[in-house]
Amino acid sequence: MASDIRVSAMKTPIDIAEYLFTRLYQLGVRTVQGVPGDYNLAALDYIPKVGLKWVGNCNELNAGYSADAYARIKGISAIVTTFGVGELSALNAIAGAYSEHVPVVHIVGQPSTASQRDGMLLHHTLGNSDYNVFANISANLAITVAKITDPHDAPTLIDHALRECWMQCQPVYIALPTDMVEQKVEGERLQTPIDLDEPVNEAEKEEYVVDVVLRYLRVAKNPVILVDAGAIRHGVLRVIHELIQKTGFPTFVTPMGKGAVDETLPNFGGVYAGTGSNEGVATRVESADLILSIGPLKSDFNTTGFSYRTSQLNTIDFYSDHVQVRYSLYPKVRMRGILQKVMARMGYLYVRPEATSFRGTMHSSTLEVSNGPITHSWLWPAVGNWLQEGDIVITETGTANFGIWETRFPKGVTAISQVLWGSIGYSVGACLGASLAVREAEKRRVILFVGDGSFQMTAQEVSTMIRQELNPIIFVICNSGYTIERYIHGWDEEYNDIHPWKHGALVEAFGAQCQHSYSTYQASTRDELTSLLNNTRFSSAPHFQLVELYMPKDDAPAALQLTAAAAAARNSPT
Amino acid sequence: MASDIRVSAMKTPIDIAEYLFTRLYQLGVRTVQGVPGDYNLAALDYIPKVGLKWVGNCNELNAGYSADAYARIKGISAIVTTFGVGELSALNAIAGAYSEHVPVVHIVGQPSTASQRDGMLLHHTLGNSDYNVFANISANLAITVAKITDPHDAPTLIDHALRECWMQCQPVYIALPTDMVEQKVEGERLQTPIDLDEPVNEAEKEEYVVDVVLRYLRVAKNPVILVDAGAIRHGVLRVIHELIQKTGFPTFVTPMGKGAVDETLPNFGGVYAGTGSNEGVATRVESADLILSIGPLKSDFNTTGFSYRTSQLNTIDFYSDHVQVRYSLYPKVRMRGILQKVMARMGYLYVRPEATSFRGTMHSSTLEVSNGPITHSWLWPAVGNWLQEGDIVITETGTANFGIWETRFPKGVTAISQVLWGSIGYSVGACLGASLAVREAEKRRVILFVGDGSFQMTAQEVSTMIRQELNPIIFVICNSGYTIERYIHGWDEEYNDIHPWKHGALVEAFGAQCQHSYSTYQASTRDELTSLLNNTRFSSAPHFQLVELYMPKDDAPAALQLTAAAAAARNSPT
Repeated sequence: MASDIRVSAMKTPIDIAEYLFTRLYQLGVRTVQGVPGDYNLAALDYIPKVGLKWVGNCNELNAGYSADAYARIKGISAIVTTFGVGELSALNAIAGAYSEHVPVVHIVGQPSTASQRDGMLLHHTLGNSDYNVFANISANLAITVAKITDPHDAPTLIDHALRECWMQCQPVYIALPTDMVEQKVEGERLQTPIDLDEPVNEAEKEEYVVDVVLRYLRVAKNPVILVDAGAIRHGVLRVIHELIQKTGFPTFVTPMGKGAVDETLPNFGGVYAGTGSNEGVATRVESADLILSIGPLKSDFNTTGFSYRTSQLNTIDFYSDHVQVRYSLYPKVRMRGILQKVMARMGYLYVRPEATSFRGTMHSSTLEVSNGPITHSWLWPAVGNWLQEGDIVITETGTANFGIWETRFPKGVTAISQVLWGSIGYSVGACLGASLAVREAEKRRVILFVGDGSFQMTAQEVSTMIRQELNPIIFVICNSGYTIERYIHGWDEEYNDIHPWKHGALVEAFGAQCQHSYSTYQASTRDELTSLLNNTRFSSAPHFQLVELYMPKDDAPAALQLTAAAAAARNSPT
Repeated sequence: MASDIRVSAMKTPIDIAEYLFTRLYQLGVRTVQGVPGDYNLAALDYIPKVGLKWVGNCNELNAGYSADAYARIKGISAIVTTFGVGELSALNAIAGAYSEHVPVVHIVGQPSTASQRDGMLLHHTLGNSDYNVFANISANLAITVAKITDPHDAPTLIDHALRECWMQCQPVYIALPTDMVEQKVEGERLQTPIDLDEPVNEAEKEEYVVDVVLRYLRVAKNPVILVDAGAIRHGVLRVIHELIQKTGFPTFVTPMGKGAVDETLPNFGGVYAGTGSNEGVATRVESADLILSIGPLKSDFNTTGFSYRTSQLNTIDFYSDHVQVRYSLYPKVRMRGILQKVMARMGYLYVRPEATSFRGTMHSSTLEVSNGPITHSWLWPAVGNWLQEGDIVITETGTANFGIWETRFPKGVTAISQVLWGSIGYSVGACLGASLAVREAEKRRVILFVGDGSFQMTAQEVSTMIRQELNPIIFVICNSGYTIERYIHGWDEEYNDIHPWKHGALVEAFGAQCQHSYSTYQASTRDELTSLLNNTRFSSAPHFQLVELYMPKDDAPAALQLTAAAAAARNSPT
C-alpha cells in the first residue's frame, strides 16, 4: 500500500530495468551482450524497449571480452549475466577490464530479494544460503558494487555506479534481483543526464604544477614525448595531438600506447619499449634530456621485461589524476588541465633543431614478394602497408601483440590488445565487440591477428560474428601451439602443443545458415599472402573472412624473444 | 647456505612439485588437466616424471568441468592453471565443485615469491601490486587455501590440503610460485601415505543415536528409503545397498541421487522429486510412515520446485557428519557408522508385507518404433532400454537432466549432472573428464546428452576428446536454443534462440588429423534413432561419435515444466 502511494506520487513512474537500460543508452551504449539465465530473463525484455540491441554470446567469458573491446571503441559497455554460474564465467574478462582500465558495466540477474532473505536452497547457489558470496568476489574486481534491493535508492545507486564506471574507466557491478526489475522509480530523473564532467583542477595547484613543468620544458635541449596506455584510456588523445604538433617534439608510443598517435606525423618516431624498441628508438629516447611521459604503465610486457634505461631525473609523468616531475609528486591534479595550460603558456622553447626530427625503422628485413615462409620480421611491416585509415587492429597476446610493434599504422588506426592482463583468447571476443561497435556508426574494418592456441580458447564466438552478419578479417596464425610459452619454458614439451584444427570447416560449422556469408583462405608463403592482401574484394571486407596464416613454429618477433627471456629469468629460483 | 645445510640433512631431498604430484598419484590421480601458462610451465615438467599424464584443455573453464567429472569417477582430481587469467577462467567450474561437493585440487602457478614481495608490475596482475587478490577470491570457493612460500612447511600444507579435499569432498586451492617448484623437501615423508581414514564416531554417542533410529525403524509399518546426493558424494553406497537388501524397504532416489541405487533391485521404486516424481512414486513416498533419507539435498531443481509433501515427523535424515531424527539434531556423528550399527542390531522389523514392494512407472507413452518426432516422453525410457551395465550417463542442465528421471538404469550405471549448480556447458567438459577417468582402468561407455545451446558454451573440448582418442557417444539435442529458459520466461524471445550449427562439420574441424577417428549421425524420427541404437557398431563405441538429435523446440520433460513454472513464480514480484 505504501508502495502504491509512493508510485502514485511519481510524475512518470518507470520500471527499474527500464531506468537502468535508458541510462546506458544515454551514455552511448547501443548493444548489450551476455547470456540469458532465469534470473536475468525478465530484465532482458527491457533491452529492445529502450532502443538497445541484445546480442547473445555463446558464453559469458566471450561476452566479457567482447564488451571490453566495445567499451574501448564506444567509451563504455554493458554485459548481462546470471547469478553465480554466469557472473563467475565472465570474471576473467572483468578482471582484464579492471587491470587494463576499461569501463564495463556488469549487470547480474539475481534471485528475488525474498528468496535471498529466506536463504532458499536454489540452483546456482553454493548450497550454503550465502547470497553475498559472488558479489563479494566481484567487489575485488569492480570499483563499485551496487546491489539493487529497494526502489527508493535504486536510481541513485545506478547513476553513481555508471558515473564511476565512466569517470574511472574500470568495471562496476550492478546486482538486479528478479523482483526489482519491475519496481517503479521516478522516470523524470532521466531528463537530467548523469554528470560526466571531469572535475576541474584546483586553480592554484594547477598553476603551480604548470610552472614546474614549464621550467623543465623551456630549457630542454633534446626532449621527447612518450605516449602510453593511460593517454588512450583517459581520453586525452586530442590534447596530446595538439601537444605533439605544437611542440614538434619527437614522439614515441609504448606497446600499450600503440595507436594513440597519428603515425603519419613527421615527428612520430616509433615504438619505445626498452630493448624491444623499433630500430634506433631506444638510443633516441634514452638520450633525451626530458621525457614527457603521458599515462605511463611500466609493466613487464610493455617494457620488454623492465628494460628501460631512462632516468626519472629526466622524466615528467602525466597521469589521469596526478603528475610526477622527477621525484616530486603532485597528487589530485588531472593531466588534461595541466597539458592544456602548459600549451597555452608554453611560449619560446629552447630545443636544438636537430632534436626535432627522428624516425625509427621497423625491424623489417625485406618486403619483397617471394616464396619464402611468412616470418614475423616480414609479416608485420607488410601488414602496415596493407592497413587502411581508420582500421581497428586487434592483436592477441603472444606473437601478434609483440609483432604489431613493427607495423606502422595509417592515420586513425585503433589498436586493441591486452598487454598488461594478457589473457589468451581475449582477442576473439574483442573482435566481436569491436565489430558490433563499428557497425553502429562507422565504416571501419576490424582486423584480428590471433594465434592458433589462443583461438581455441574462445573460438565459438565466431558463430556470433556470423549470426550478426559482421565482417571482420581474422588472421589465425597457425604455428602449432603456444609459441610465447615455448620461448619462456618447454621448447619441445607436449604441453605447449595444441590439436590442429581445420579452421575452414569450423567456420562452415558456425555459418550454417548462409553459405555466402563468409570466406576462408590459406596462406603459407609471402607470395600467397601478398596476393591475398592485393585482392581488392578481400580487402573490402565484404563479409566474414578468416585466413589461416601458416608460419614457422619456432619463429617469433624479436621483442617477444627478449621479453620471454626476461620472464624466464624472473621465474627461476634466485 | 642455511638452505644447503637443510637440504644436505635430508635423507631423500626432492623438489616440491615432485612431492605434490607424487601425493596426487598416491591418491589415485593418473591424469592432470589444465592450460599451460608461464607461471606454471616449470611445474608441468614434473607431471610425466611421477607417472601422471598431462592433458591440456582448450580453456580453463572446460578443464575445471572435466576435472569435476574425473573426480566424481576417481574420487579426486587436479587441475593446473596460471595466475590471474587462468585461475579466474576456471572459477565457475570450481564453484560448481564446491556447490556439488566434488573434490578438485586447483593448483595455481604464481609469479616468484621475490616478484610478489617486490610488488612487480607483471602481466596477469591487476596493475595494483596486489598479489593476494586472486587467492582471496578463491578462498570463497575452496575449503582450504595453501600458499606454498617456504619449503619448510610445504609438505605439511600440501598434505593438509589434499586430506581436506578428500575428506570433505570440496575443492582446495594450492598456490605454487615459480621459485618454489624446485625447492627441496624431505622425500622420505612420501613413504607414509596421507591419512584418509574417516574419524570413528564417539562410541556412546553413536550407540545413543542408533537406539533412537532403531526405535522408529522397528515399529514402522510402511517405511521407505530415499537416497540423495550426499550418499554418492560421501561414498556410502555399499553400506546403503546392504541396507536396501537387508530391510527390503521400497527404495527411491532423488534426481541428484540418480545412479546411486541398483535400479534392477526388486525393491527399487523410481525417482522421487515431489510433483515431478515417476508415476505413482509421490503417493507412495508421501504416505510412508518413516522415510530413511540418506544424504538429502533439498534444492529447487532436486525437488521439482520444493514440492515435497513429506513430514519431518516421519523422517530420519542421515548426513556425512550428522543425523537428524524428526526435529532432533545429532551433530558430529557420521552416517556410515550409524547405518552399519543399525543394520547389525536391526533384528525383527514390523513392516506390513504389502509395503515391501513397489515400482513406479516411467512417464513413457509408448516405446513403439514409429515415424513420429523424438519427444522427451518417448526418448528417455527408450534410452533406458539401450543403456548397458556400467555405462556413465552425463546429462546437461536443461531438458536432459530432467528427462533422465524417466530412464531406468541397468546395474552399475553412473549418472553425472549438476542439478544444484546447474552451469550450462558443464556436461561437455564432464564428458571429457569421465572419458579420461574410464580409459585408465575400466571398459565403460561414456554417454552425453546435451542441448544445442549448452553445447555452444564449451564445444571446443570435443577437440580434446578427439586428440586423446576417446570414444564417448555425444547426443546433441537440437531444439533451437535454451528450452529450459523458454519455460521460465520469454517463450518466443530472441534471447532464447541460438545460431544453428552444423555439428558434423564441427567435429570434422576438431578432428583434423585422422579422418577415421570419429563418426557423426543425425536422427529426427523415432525410427531413425531406434535404428541407430540397434546398430551394434554404434553401440560398441568404437571411437568418438556425435549424434544430432532433432527434437521439437517446444517439448520438454514434464518435470522440467513443473520446475520451471515454480521458478518463474519465485522470480516474480510478490
